[in-house]
Amino acid sequence: MCSILSRRNPVQRALALTHLLAARPDGSSHAAAGRRRLHPGVSTGVHPLPAASRSYCSRMAQNQGLFFRQLFEKESSTYTYLLADTDTRDAIIIDPVLETIDRDLKLIHELGLNLKVAVNTHCHADHITSTGLMKKRLVGLKSAISKFSGATADILLSEGDEITFGKHHLKVRETPGHTDGCVALVLEDQSMVFTGDTLLIRGCGRTDFQQGCAKTLYNSVHQKIFTLPDQCLVYPAHDYLGQTASTVSEERKFNPRLTKSLEEFVDIMKNLNLPKPKKIDISVPANLVCGVHEV
Amino acid sequence: MCSILSRRNPVQRALALTHLLAARPDGSSHAAAGRRRLHPGVSTGVHPLPAASRSYCSRMAQNQGLFFRQLFEKESSTYTYLLADTDTRDAIIIDPVLETIDRDLKLIHELGLNLKVAVNTHCHADHITSTGLMKKRLVGLKSAISKFSGATADILLSEGDEITFGKHHLKVRETPGHTDGCVALVLEDQSMVFTGDTLLIRGCGRTDFQQGCAKTLYNSVHQKIFTLPDQCLVYPAHDYLGQTASTVSEERKFNPRLTKSLEEFVDIMKNLNLPKPKKIDISVPANLVCGVHEV
Repeated sequence: MCSILSRRNPVQRALALTHLLAARPDGSSHAAAGRRRLHPGVSTGVHPLPAASRSYCSRMAQNQGLFFRQLFEKESSTYTYLLADTDTRDAIIIDPVLETIDRDLKLIHELGLNLKVAVNTHCHADHITSTGLMKKRLVGLKSAISKFSGATADILLSEGDEITFGKHHLKVRETPGHTDGCVALVLEDQSMVFTGDTLLIRGCGRTDFQQGCAKTLYNSVHQKIFTLPDQCLVYPAHDYLGQTASTVSEERKFNPRLTKSLEEFVDIMKNLNLPKPKKIDISVPANLVCGVHEV
Repeated sequence: MCSILSRRNPVQRALALTHLLAARPDGSSHAAAGRRRLHPGVSTGVHPLPAASRSYCSRMAQNQGLFFRQLFEKESSTYTYLLADTDTRDAIIIDPVLETIDRDLKLIHELGLNLKVAVNTHCHADHITSTGLMKKRLVGLKSAISKFSGATADILLSEGDEITFGKHHLKVRETPGHTDGCVALVLEDQSMVFTGDTLLIRGCGRTDFQQGCAKTLYNSVHQKIFTLPDQCLVYPAHDYLGQTASTVSEERKFNPRLTKSLEEFVDIMKNLNLPKPKKIDISVPANLVCGVHEV
């Protein structure tokens, strides 16, 4: 396992939109030490990506030049997200699934993307990540997951970390509750948040296994996600009803669980009586090592 | 059946972004007579929609104030699209499915949208539209479909028609081939196109039933869709591989069928040997009358 991390001072941060700092290897964890920036690689200077360049929130101009694609794996109803800088083509993938690795790699190849980091929002219990196999197929790809996940990866994420791809980055917010090692990933302008299983569309992840704690999840959502701007788009790790996106405003108003009081929420979660996830006994051990394949 | 149509001169067109013209009933068809604008209703002046306002293509400023949501029906792998003006809340829905009517109406209700038009991109063979039932539940809702579909609806669409919702509109491009009555719907700034079954992501609709003609579909795609801007987002009526969107540029380059010559394409389509759609015998008759429920 190796981590490619650098801590940055305010001047370095101010330069971040136009300059990539040299990577500084740093294997230690600095959860409380404020922001860190992850530099998976240097921009390659290829031709601009001839794909969707779109601004997700019109008031946030710096979001231009972002490629975004949502993908779905139907057996586990998992969403995978591919984001890239349309100029440098540096890209990241969030929650890729083993069953759809060929589809995802084909798209990455067609678009000429340089996939730098494969991030898991947590150690999944319902499917096996393709991160490990993807690392074998793409030279230089790094895996990333929360340092509290218990899983092995190249990069162990902490609160405030920034995962950089070209001129864009995702900032890590720790959101324990579904598992200890859950994170939400927030785009630099707070126009998009990838919530993993912490916040689903009109729902949330279960809290009855894998260190789950309803009270902790409730606080994570209210403190780390509901504090984002109203119009921030919510992209979860799953949806079972054909919903593809929501907003922070919508979930604050209409989420049938998270709009309740803490006590009511804890009571709801205690009485869900859900069956054990079918794949948990093979998925969790596999995902602790990037999906059975060596890191 | 009634049509709410008006034809407009250049001065009226220039005023269109800020003023709604009075509706002028006109039941006739004017496919070759240039643009018409559909006025399903007058803006209600409610509070701005507290949902995602996003610009889909950064170079097109007038796209601000657009609400957009993609929805999925898993049995038929159909995408339904909900679009609205975030100020007036006037909305349209594209290809709604009977099985998901409750989900869709709940979302429309939560967001406080005034659903004006339910459009079908064609007479579907694989699922039943919810348009007819939706009309019974939402007072004033109008149904729309191509005049060449053979189906009954409030509004029969022709080339160049504009379906207005608030300050936004979709323009109709006739794209026969999968059926005679297929249309693509293009957002006013050409940043998004809803292609129905004419163009799918790395694929296309079949041409072996319902007036299907491979040569006609090929010409429709090349003349009406591939002529849109590179970055125009392609939103199809279906996807079976978990892909949610593409772009005109991507399909021009990577569509394994439509990048071929006309002759090769016709040959490919002739040899697909696909089974008959399971629901065709109930879906088509139902969809000819807005989904079995009276218009």
